[in-house]
Amino acid sequence: MDKRDSPHSMDAVVMINGGLNLVTAPIPTPGSGEVLVKVLATGICGSDLHCLAHTSELLASTKAATGIDLFKIDEPVVMGHEFCAEVVEYGPETRGTIPPGTRVASPGFLLREPVVLLGYGGPDIPGGYAEYMLLSEDLLIRVPDNVPDEIAALTEPMAVALHAVNRGDLSPDDVPLVIGCGPIGLAVIAILKMRGFGPIVAADFSPSRRAMATALGADVVVDPRETSPYESWKEVAATSDPTRMGPPNVMFPPGFRPSTVFECVGVPGIIQQILAGAAANSKVVVVGVCMEQDSFHPTVAILKEIDLIFSIAFSLEEYAEVLGHLASGALQAAPLITSRVGLHEVPEAFARLADPEKEAKIVVLPAAR
Amino acid sequence: MDKRDSPHSMDAVVMINGGLNLVTAPIPTPGSGEVLVKVLATGICGSDLHCLAHTSELLASTKAATGIDLFKIDEPVVMGHEFCAEVVEYGPETRGTIPPGTRVASPGFLLREPVVLLGYGGPDIPGGYAEYMLLSEDLLIRVPDNVPDEIAALTEPMAVALHAVNRGDLSPDDVPLVIGCGPIGLAVIAILKMRGFGPIVAADFSPSRRAMATALGADVVVDPRETSPYESWKEVAATSDPTRMGPPNVMFPPGFRPSTVFECVGVPGIIQQILAGAAANSKVVVVGVCMEQDSFHPTVAILKEIDLIFSIAFSLEEYAEVLGHLASGALQAAPLITSRVGLHEVPEAFARLADPEKEAKIVVLPAAR
Repeated sequence: MDKRDSPHSMDAVVMINGGLNLVTAPIPTPGSGEVLVKVLATGICGSDLHCLAHTSELLASTKAATGIDLFKIDEPVVMGHEFCAEVVEYGPETRGTIPPGTRVASPGFLLREPVVLLGYGGPDIPGGYAEYMLLSEDLLIRVPDNVPDEIAALTEPMAVALHAVNRGDLSPDDVPLVIGCGPIGLAVIAILKMRGFGPIVAADFSPSRRAMATALGADVVVDPRETSPYESWKEVAATSDPTRMGPPNVMFPPGFRPSTVFECVGVPGIIQQILAGAAANSKVVVVGVCMEQDSFHPTVAILKEIDLIFSIAFSLEEYAEVLGHLASGALQAAPLITSRVGLHEVPEAFARLADPEKEAKIVVLPAAR
Repeated sequence: MDKRDSPHSMDAVVMINGGLNLVTAPIPTPGSGEVLVKVLATGICGSDLHCLAHTSELLASTKAATGIDLFKIDEPVVMGHEFCAEVVEYGPETRGTIPPGTRVASPGFLLREPVVLLGYGGPDIPGGYAEYMLLSEDLLIRVPDNVPDEIAALTEPMAVALHAVNRGDLSPDDVPLVIGCGPIGLAVIAILKMRGFGPIVAADFSPSRRAMATALGADVVVDPRETSPYESWKEVAATSDPTRMGPPNVMFPPGFRPSTVFECVGVPGIIQQILAGAAANSKVVVVGVCMEQDSFHPTVAILKEIDLIFSIAFSLEEYAEVLGHLASGALQAAPLITSRVGLHEVPEAFARLADPEKEAKIVVLPAAR
């Protein structure tokens, strides 16, 4: 469908009352500084699954932590914040420097007052599970010709992973451990590989996700049912360089030097498991989003002097950097994609993502029929 | 009592089965590389109160986190790891460069294999709640003449605070917030003041501890029953320099720039309270030791991208640095001391420390009768 054929309505997948439905919705009108774009590809994000399953918790915790009111609980909302799009039409007070028809990417924000998180923006501001959406001109980045739509749509999760790795502030000789090889864990592995860190140790219960971890650059990949990720990590760190010992500290027995663990699971209990397994002086970067209350034993973290570093967002520079790496070929994202679906298949795709054996990243192609 | 008068026995305060008793104990014999010292002053540490109240949890969590077996649960143990002492007699394989009669301090470790944490070392290795103890020659530092015994004994808690402030890695324009003005919170305030950070905001329920916080250098001190420490902190940060805003981040509304919170309480729930109150991008240094399971909402920490930095120990260099600052007068520790007691008064002093209105740091003087 092209806007010229049907200028007033479009297909969109609406979330309301914990369910997803394909509906006909009005095409939004760009405000000041905004651009109407045609959505070419949108990745389904774990946050969207969380949002569908835990809507009220997400709204409450976002309000508490950031002061931001997302959509209202009883409002229809079109999710989708990982997208690649094509410029259709400029709104008022725009420069229009990127011609219509050009492919663009953008971080998932609309620069209104207050800022809108795209994909969580209420009925009039659809996210990427729709044929059209609005973007802020100031955030548009041209997608290089050699980056396919579906890869450009993964700029966002890759930027989340790049930011998490930046937050970890690894030393060149770190041996990183990635717990959980869902899309974000896999993206973290890809970024670590690109940056030259390694050997990379990764863990996931799913054979297919372990295979993807290997494809994206993990050097040692374990099934936690069979092998302790923490013991494997310690073995790899000790074997890869026996001189890599921790800093002298009379309090702790000498072991391998500290390194960084990436928590990419986001369920209650996983932080405590990592605190218990991690070496003294380790950094733990929490990228998984646990929407529920969690419990832990502070003494374990205290006696090990752990840094627990929480990470979720990214800077505009990190987003642009990732798109550059995807264009140069330095960063691999293709192995993440397991399926492509049309808008009408989105509800079923959400259901399929519950099984880690079947899927990792599903990309929605709104033009697909 | 001098060792020459009674070479085989000494007074010591023994913990067994959750109680404290003054007993007559054998004077320990220094092993290889060790020195027998006469204890001049020992600070009563909150960790010792924790240890008395939660003995089995402390043993289990230390074992789990560090692999170290402290004393056995049914063994008598002489606690006390903040001390100033006088060299009495060298054991075998020592150099003896510090003459007997010289005052010394030492981090609370005995360099055996495995390392012994003094004060948690079992029946044959007494800590500082005794007339004599053993130290490792390699860890001895001479106490400068102008540092009184009781101040030298506070080198240890001041080193814990210095390390915590170092772990916080503050920027010069940070506005630190100290939650809890017990001995460690007060020590953190003294270190922050010495380092020139400020304005320093502090909070405690106790009027006497708030007065001590002011004496040690806190600029704004609030009673959390009347005023939110987090709101006061934000006001002080905004008022002290209106240009101190957070880094540009489209995700979070602009607020005051991030800063560092020191958690110096150590009870369940306080970490979640701080996560809820802290500004986005803040660092939270956890110096309080919560021995129980705790719960929190990871989403709050994630959406604010908090760094939760756990701190307990210190390096030998930090310990020596603190003693130097105490000697130069750059660091004030005297306002921390609220009482001095003899060994026979230690059980009652532990009980008195339960009331924050009465006491902060009690120093044990084993020679006092």
